[in-house]
Amino acid sequence: MLEDKNQSRTSLEELGEFGLIEHLTKNFSIQHKTTVLGIGDDAAIVDFKEGQTVITTDLLIEGVHFDLSYMPLKHLGYKAVMVNLSDVYAMNAAASQITVSIAVSNRFPVEALEELYEGIHAACKNYKVDLIGGDTTSSNVGLVISITALGEASPETIVKRSGANENDLLVVSGDLGGAYMGLQVLEREKEVFKANPNNQPELEQYSYIVERQLKPEARQDITAILKELNVVPTAMIDISDGLSSEILHLCKASNLGCQLFEDKIPLDPQVINVCEEFNIDSTTIALSGGEDYELLFTIKQEDYPKIKANPSVSVIGHMTHEREGKHLITRADTKIPIIARGWNSLSNGG
Amino acid sequence: MLEDKNQSRTSLEELGEFGLIEHLTKNFSIQHKTTVLGIGDDAAIVDFKEGQTVITTDLLIEGVHFDLSYMPLKHLGYKAVMVNLSDVYAMNAAASQITVSIAVSNRFPVEALEELYEGIHAACKNYKVDLIGGDTTSSNVGLVISITALGEASPETIVKRSGANENDLLVVSGDLGGAYMGLQVLEREKEVFKANPNNQPELEQYSYIVERQLKPEARQDITAILKELNVVPTAMIDISDGLSSEILHLCKASNLGCQLFEDKIPLDPQVINVCEEFNIDSTTIALSGGEDYELLFTIKQEDYPKIKANPSVSVIGHMTHEREGKHLITRADTKIPIIARGWNSLSNGG
Repeated sequence: MLEDKNQSRTSLEELGEFGLIEHLTKNFSIQHKTTVLGIGDDAAIVDFKEGQTVITTDLLIEGVHFDLSYMPLKHLGYKAVMVNLSDVYAMNAAASQITVSIAVSNRFPVEALEELYEGIHAACKNYKVDLIGGDTTSSNVGLVISITALGEASPETIVKRSGANENDLLVVSGDLGGAYMGLQVLEREKEVFKANPNNQPELEQYSYIVERQLKPEARQDITAILKELNVVPTAMIDISDGLSSEILHLCKASNLGCQLFEDKIPLDPQVINVCEEFNIDSTTIALSGGEDYELLFTIKQEDYPKIKANPSVSVIGHMTHEREGKHLITRADTKIPIIARGWNSLSNGG
Repeated sequence: MLEDKNQSRTSLEELGEFGLIEHLTKNFSIQHKTTVLGIGDDAAIVDFKEGQTVITTDLLIEGVHFDLSYMPLKHLGYKAVMVNLSDVYAMNAAASQITVSIAVSNRFPVEALEELYEGIHAACKNYKVDLIGGDTTSSNVGLVISITALGEASPETIVKRSGANENDLLVVSGDLGGAYMGLQVLEREKEVFKANPNNQPELEQYSYIVERQLKPEARQDITAILKELNVVPTAMIDISDGLSSEILHLCKASNLGCQLFEDKIPLDPQVINVCEEFNIDSTTIALSGGEDYELLFTIKQEDYPKIKANPSVSVIGHMTHEREGKHLITRADTKIPIIARGWNSLSNGG
């Protein structure tokens, strides 16, 4: 589907470990005044005297988290950074630095890693983040990517999962389920391609959801909008595993229950259409699909007027006393318990 | 060699991803005032208002960096932390926090991960480091461990690779080559065991070097000694890839040459004996062996009186003008160029 058989191939041994790092990172520039020293020493140095630092890390394994048969390496590099930045924004912090470690087997030529780093570079540029370190090593199997992201925040505006209160409104950015349905389409096209390699995939009508899967954007813009609107969420989390799983995390951390209204869950028309095509319930996909990297947060009721006209966010429910439980109120006005059916990488994988 | 067939086995699915993290990290306590928020949110929060922060990260892959047939999981957890702390101490910084990400296949029961985390816990306790986050996911192959370490330092005493000057003395802590020869002994015993599983390995006479391989200690004590002696190295690096490779890094970063004296390289008698047994030149092993996690640093000549009586460090040479090149002066007083033959994980692996 994507492999270009004519690409030039430079073996990793030709460069060696240190040469490879230098080669892959030579175009990365330092943009943050907090970055004192980047790549090239035993450790990087940052200076966060003016606020607190948030740190998050993610580990992505080929065959578990991504499939290179439909994930271009450039997109993978971009997405791997997004996954981490999304966690930084979920703290209401400003992402500032990342480290990137990769393990690769010899089947990857240098050119493949250049593509991966092109995506990482684009992410660093678009989100104004400095690449300050990492590790490059060999893998006896596939590709492994481990990214750690740092961000800055002031103690007054940092947002944890645990700060929600009874009657706070539950708000989500963007729309849900697209990334998961994009994956379903890509998986189907992969099977078609395996059966007949001359068959060219037709993805045009699925462009939005395929892009949601292959090139998600972390919602830095939402943290900027909230700042502009002078709204500090009481609790926040990013949606990596699916709405139901993340709601339960917020409820647990804040010792609360909640009511989520099915008819308020934002869905893109393409998601609704593709769910019909695949004969899957779109609410189930929004609740359990995962990888949307939207932000889910709670705000005080008094902040509602500030956000109600904003098309980037939707109020989907409210928090309740813990004893009232966590419920989905369906379109038919029935009340069903929310359970975590989120994407669980421990049971999905090998 | 090490597998206990009677161990109890709890499958990873029984706990699930979030349950697993909670289970494995429940005994870890927070010891640093800079740690504001640890595990359990989208990101950890640290507060480094009083100094600069150093960050380092390492990625360890089963079959490339470790072999579970002779590496007990508890030791592996300990060593994985040491590898990172060593980089922090090489900046003359105080290690304060780590994040630990692991990918595991279903062949590992929860009990195996408990052992791994026992080692991580022991390392955190011994070195007063807080575990503040990470990621736990599945692997379709073996075990992958990614650790990021943070440390604090004041800008005045932080030491980079680039600060050495002509005529500075080249100093190394501890002794070299032990970890590599320990690995050779373990590899040999593995072969013996494969040929005859009833054969119990006799490792007593190799205890020092086997421990150097399986349970290295990062040289926090050296940074403490230097502080006590009021010596701030001009440049520093830790020895992970072998003395020659690290010397070349210091020379390159500081734009200098150097003279290294073969007869000054510190070797433990057990390393010398085992090198004879394996018919390998001990200087070659010290130069290229790797994984010793000692500190290599340069000091001003005027600081020599402060360190000369200290048994933990050895002066092994001095820095020269760049045009004089980088040379080893042998016991026979011949001058040979130092080349990097260090352990290179990109060519060693698959």
